[in-house]
Amino acid sequence: MTKNQVTSVPKPTLRRLPGYLQVLYELKKNGSIDVSSTIIANELNVKPIQVRKDIEFTGIVGRPKTGYVITELISAIESFLNWDNITDAFLVGAGHLGSAILGYENFTKYGVKIIAAFDVDSEKVGTVIHGKEIFPLEKMLDLCSRMHIHIGVITVPAENAQYVADLMVQGGITAIWNFAPVELQVPENTIVENTPFSQSLAVLSHKLKENIKRN
Amino acid sequence: MTKNQVTSVPKPTLRRLPGYLQVLYELKKNGSIDVSSTIIANELNVKPIQVRKDIEFTGIVGRPKTGYVITELISAIESFLNWDNITDAFLVGAGHLGSAILGYENFTKYGVKIIAAFDVDSEKVGTVIHGKEIFPLEKMLDLCSRMHIHIGVITVPAENAQYVADLMVQGGITAIWNFAPVELQVPENTIVENTPFSQSLAVLSHKLKENIKRN
Repeated sequence: MTKNQVTSVPKPTLRRLPGYLQVLYELKKNGSIDVSSTIIANELNVKPIQVRKDIEFTGIVGRPKTGYVITELISAIESFLNWDNITDAFLVGAGHLGSAILGYENFTKYGVKIIAAFDVDSEKVGTVIHGKEIFPLEKMLDLCSRMHIHIGVITVPAENAQYVADLMVQGGITAIWNFAPVELQVPENTIVENTPFSQSLAVLSHKLKENIKRN
Repeated sequence: MTKNQVTSVPKPTLRRLPGYLQVLYELKKNGSIDVSSTIIANELNVKPIQVRKDIEFTGIVGRPKTGYVITELISAIESFLNWDNITDAFLVGAGHLGSAILGYENFTKYGVKIIAAFDVDSEKVGTVIHGKEIFPLEKMLDLCSRMHIHIGVITVPAENAQYVADLMVQGGITAIWNFAPVELQVPENTIVENTPFSQSLAVLSHKLKENIKRN
């Protein structure tokens, strides 16, 4: 597979691969050896042709009749997603949401390990939340470059998120996972993934009110 | 404001309102009385005209020069988002992610309170996680209708998510917050908001690997 092909993988493909992995783990647990694209497709409401196309990006091609060898496919997808390497990450904003995220051990399954957190609140600095020490924000820039950190998680209030993102970019972080309800401005080579809880709940809660009014 | 205008509010507007609220809370805390759309816009990298348009949906119009009265605007947005009412919700899937979500108290700020959780694992059933009892999944349908639950949170593995969504819809749930990496098929009047952690980490982790390769 050439470099151009690798870099052109569409985001929707990347978003579907974790679902395939979950199905594969389950099949493996139940003793299956092979799996067809149709079986994966049916579990996840996706078309079989889409499953085959997505999997091709990982360099694996299914064989007629038997399909894919499950263990091979798991390794290929994990390696493609870089989930077979653990990348260290910093988190900024040790409030309610930040603390909850620090307590969620499972991110290592997805190749990410939050190793330290930062906050401006002097009452939080120096404390330990779920085994991670909270450092003052002004130490982040220096630690980022010294420890070659590439992933940053933002769980600060909306009005501080851009400032924190700028600091992260300065420190060499190129992948930002943003939980604040704001569109971050970052350089072109920086990746931002937004997971704004409050925005999802705004949509759900308002639409629910509309539904109830209509009935 | 007529019903037609209310029902036509665009999702991007709903997604921006929580950011405005965060800025308003902060300004109020610091003793401000009024705020202009420009101040809100600058904090969040949005255009002032967009802020004014979004806020109009809540029924509030700013006055020339002074702009908005902060306390009035907070009430209007909270009420528009239905965050001034707490809606009870059920969660299905008491694994790592489900447990982390059960432990996050702050959802009540966004009008949602998870009051019970369900799982198929008999070892989890009967236990209490962060103060919420875990019930067997087969009890959900009955409890949903008896307790008039309208919001469901799905934190089960991908291959079980559609089954759980179907059960929720049967039970009368019309707003689903889905953390599983799968596109759910639901009736037209059911709202789904997807927050797939694993999908966000797939995008971040793969793109990070690409960046590192290029440099």
